[in-house]
Amino acid sequence: MQAFSLIEIAGTTAFAVSGSLAAMNKKLDPFGVFIIAMVTSVGGGTLRDVLIGRTPVGWMRDPTYVYCVIAGFFLAIVFRKRLDHLRKSLFLFDTIGLGFFTMVGIQRGLAVGLEPSICIALGTITACFGGVTRDILCNEIPVIFRREIYATLCIAGGCLYFLMREYLPFSKDVMSFITSGFIIMLRLFAVRYKWYLAPPTTA
Amino acid sequence: MQAFSLIEIAGTTAFAVSGSLAAMNKKLDPFGVFIIAMVTSVGGGTLRDVLIGRTPVGWMRDPTYVYCVIAGFFLAIVFRKRLDHLRKSLFLFDTIGLGFFTMVGIQRGLAVGLEPSICIALGTITACFGGVTRDILCNEIPVIFRREIYATLCIAGGCLYFLMREYLPFSKDVMSFITSGFIIMLRLFAVRYKWYLAPPTTA
Amino acid sequence: MQAFSLIEIAGTTAFAVSGSLAAMNKKLDPFGVFIIAMVTSVGGGTLRDVLIGRTPVGWMRDPTYVYCVIAGFFLAIVFRKRLDHLRKSLFLFDTIGLGFFTMVGIQRGLAVGLEPSICIALGTITACFGGVTRDILCNEIPVIFRREIYATLCIAGGCLYFLMREYLPFSKDVMSFITSGFIIMLRLFAVRYKWYLAPPTTA
Repeated sequence: MQAFSLIEIAGTTAFAVSGSLAAMNKKLDPFGVFIIAMVTSVGGGTLRDVLIGRTPVGWMRDPTYVYCVIAGFFLAIVFRKRLDHLRKSLFLFDTIGLGFFTMVGIQRGLAVGLEPSICIALGTITACFGGVTRDILCNEIPVIFRREIYATLCIAGGCLYFLMREYLPFSKDVMSFITSGFIIMLRLFAVRYKWYLAPPTTA
Repeated sequence: MQAFSLIEIAGTTAFAVSGSLAAMNKKLDPFGVFIIAMVTSVGGGTLRDVLIGRTPVGWMRDPTYVYCVIAGFFLAIVFRKRLDHLRKSLFLFDTIGLGFFTMVGIQRGLAVGLEPSICIALGTITACFGGVTRDILCNEIPVIFRREIYATLCIAGGCLYFLMREYLPFSKDVMSFITSGFIIMLRLFAVRYKWYLAPPTTA
Repeated sequence: MQAFSLIEIAGTTAFAVSGSLAAMNKKLDPFGVFIIAMVTSVGGGTLRDVLIGRTPVGWMRDPTYVYCVIAGFFLAIVFRKRLDHLRKSLFLFDTIGLGFFTMVGIQRGLAVGLEPSICIALGTITACFGGVTRDILCNEIPVIFRREIYATLCIAGGCLYFLMREYLPFSKDVMSFITSGFIIMLRLFAVRYKWYLAPPTTA
């Protein structure tokens, strides 16, 4: 990644803050907190890069990612007692990251010539897998498998992208912008109106 | 993979059904169920491809894998209340998958010039690692580490393959067929006669 | 890796013994014990190789790793009731492995032209990630995130290496030797004097 946009910095940092908070909740030591922060923010992109063979993986080529994680880590440590007040801005960053990283994953898939359905999977992995690894390391069943229609939104956004790509004359940047915005709006609505997926009853 | 054989389709689908059932047992939401289904069926081959550097990994190159997972997912959702009746056919598919995927892993290792012992490890990873990841995501100690001599059978089959390769004039296809059949028969016997490995006593 | 030094053999074997003991504690069957032993000793190097794209990963290219794991596995099985007496030598090997594998990871990173901070991360991954995976497979929060300043020592050692590299005219071998020794001594002190990192209080 040549140019590290402001929004990517915000997304990476927000993910790092969310990872740090989860780890501090589990009473991990500072090193553990840092690792969970790192994994939460770069884990998704790392898995994506490993799966498509783009190595060394992203954060190894551009230290900006690591700086964002360090910033998020210290923000979480310093403001940990006041983050209740920040919860709204955190949620916003996390949501922006969700929309943004989905698009990054889709673009990376297109760049190596993969099919739309696989690109959507890559977008979802990029946006969601960091949180999954965070939960596994904290010894919990990943939250996105249980509550909140987090990943489903990434998939919906990915479908929108490829529909536009097929039928509308928009440029890549415009489509990326619309897709990210769509995912972000969907999530704001989903949380506001408590949309969720019910588990299939097995009884 | 050029030709997707009927048996690979059956094995992938059976693994997806088994993953979906495990996830529904844990009350995951439909997205979580789908991911566990995906991981259970393609996780082993994905790890194998990552370890030998065959990227983009298999399911990204051939969407047939994803279609099989989707089919297994819907089968499990639709028939979840009647799967007791299907348990025998499921067990059979799972066992066929075990024999088949072990051979796929061995062939992939040979294709990149690895040693027999490493090829056997790759066969075992291909056949067993999906189930291991399923159990980790569901927050359990992987079942193959505790009960059932699942992976041991893959190793036995792999040894048979390389013994035949060294000492017998069979063609590759014949040896693959014999090896898969050997693993399948062994597992049927193992479950029928309750063979298992006792944990080393530490007391 | 052309020449497999005595110290790497000792480190790999010690890690395998420590993994086997952890797995036997969890009452896993012999296959499970072997896999945990394997993952504990080669897991860190495997993740490192996957992240930098050095595939097939190390233990697939040189079976010596696998032989060390097998040796460690049998040592642990045979001496499991007497390992209390061996605990000190085990701890020593584990510590030697820590210092040694950190240097291996740093060298691998330098070999592909990565930045110092990324090389230090690779060293830490090489030395620590095997233990992390062991704990995840045994369904525990990784111990290095909770107690003991294990990974912090690797990072300290890595910083020392790059400081020497910048300011001192030592050869690569001398610097590697000093760095490994520094990490080993730090850990002996850390355990002797009970250094640890306190979790950030969230209350």
